[in-house]
Amino acid sequence: MFATYAIAASLMILKAVAMARLTALRMMQVKGGYRSPEDLRQTLLNPSPNPAQLAPDERVERIRRIQMDDLENLPFFLIAGLLYVLTKPNLIAARVVLFGHVISRMAHFAAYLFAQTHDMRASLWTIGSVLLIYMTLRTLAVASGLAG
Amino acid sequence: MFATYAIAASLMILKAVAMARLTALRMMQVKGGYRSPEDLRQTLLNPSPNPAQLAPDERVERIRRIQMDDLENLPFFLIAGLLYVLTKPNLIAARVVLFGHVISRMAHFAAYLFAQTHDMRASLWTIGSVLLIYMTLRTLAVASGLAG
Amino acid sequence: MFATYAIAASLMILKAVAMARLTALRMMQVKGGYRSPEDLRQTLLNPSPNPAQLAPDERVERIRRIQMDDLENLPFFLIAGLLYVLTKPNLIAARVVLFGHVISRMAHFAAYLFAQTHDMRASLWTIGSVLLIYMTLRTLAVASGLAG
Repeated sequence: MFATYAIAASLMILKAVAMARLTALRMMQVKGGYRSPEDLRQTLLNPSPNPAQLAPDERVERIRRIQMDDLENLPFFLIAGLLYVLTKPNLIAARVVLFGHVISRMAHFAAYLFAQTHDMRASLWTIGSVLLIYMTLRTLAVASGLAG
Repeated sequence: MFATYAIAASLMILKAVAMARLTALRMMQVKGGYRSPEDLRQTLLNPSPNPAQLAPDERVERIRRIQMDDLENLPFFLIAGLLYVLTKPNLIAARVVLFGHVISRMAHFAAYLFAQTHDMRASLWTIGSVLLIYMTLRTLAVASGLAG
Repeated sequence: MFATYAIAASLMILKAVAMARLTALRMMQVKGGYRSPEDLRQTLLNPSPNPAQLAPDERVERIRRIQMDDLENLPFFLIAGLLYVLTKPNLIAARVVLFGHVISRMAHFAAYLFAQTHDMRASLWTIGSVLLIYMTLRTLAVASGLAG
């Protein structure tokens, strides 16, 4: 049970780290989308700096938006999932809920990266969000029983 | 004790999820404040798109700022609270600290939503922040004793 | 072992709280970099408001970028570290990995605050990121063995 949680959590942590690396990679590819004035200094990674590099670049901004969406979701999933498995749910149910969330986030990432419609993104996001609410409500119910 | 933490944590997770839903809801209400170029495609949720929908909208931006404030605070509260209850504090003290934090965040949300002064927002924010620092310093003291 | 994690986690939580306080402190110092329309009301903390206070201020924005970088990293470190110590690693290895991450984040903060080159910031960031990936891959390997 706890192993199921640890696997789902690890996959989500790796996704979050991958988003940060992907942002950095895109900045290198487009040689722009930087944010700090000092990023215009000439260095090994930026041999020919120019002021336009500080302007937002849509290819970088898209990854930043995806990353922001992860920040609004994953830290809460990581704790909600931990508390949820401590409520001793049915193992099959736990796998459906935890891996269902992982799959919904991966599909959301693909839909966002390839610029699918807002409606599809919103639907995938909602699946993950509903699973997160379910885990939290179960924790709340079990914990309230224990605390009462 | 752990149940007290689980309840406080669940309430804060539900608040974080609610902020994301509230942002989406406000975007639907004002039919704007979108951020991705593809959000201007005609869909069921956006039947009459126009470029002004990508401009920032203060009613949406306000919720985004509240959500951002949660992201700067709640993930750290969730872990700090978990480690704090593992230090076996007095049960009454734990309830005051954990639910005090929950209440301060709820009040901060109300003050921000209804555009109260910066001073009131800052005062409510500081209460939550001081409780967070207290929990963390206690954890640090207990863990240092164990590790020493 | 767990005490080592609790110390590293507490230090990172205190750093995150410090960033939020530092942002607020810089806003007070420069009397600007505010974001909400209501922050222009006359209050004890802002006795002589003027509209320029809502414009971005680089001294405030720099701290916000550092804080954002923390939000992209620390919540995931906090959970990854917790799961990692539950895999019962060697105590010396755990200290190197956990405190190595703490030190890399502190050095990254200093490099960012004092506007060192993007290359130096990226190198320090990468050290923390590699340690985070290492912890997560170990958790994944151990948990997969247990779940298999």
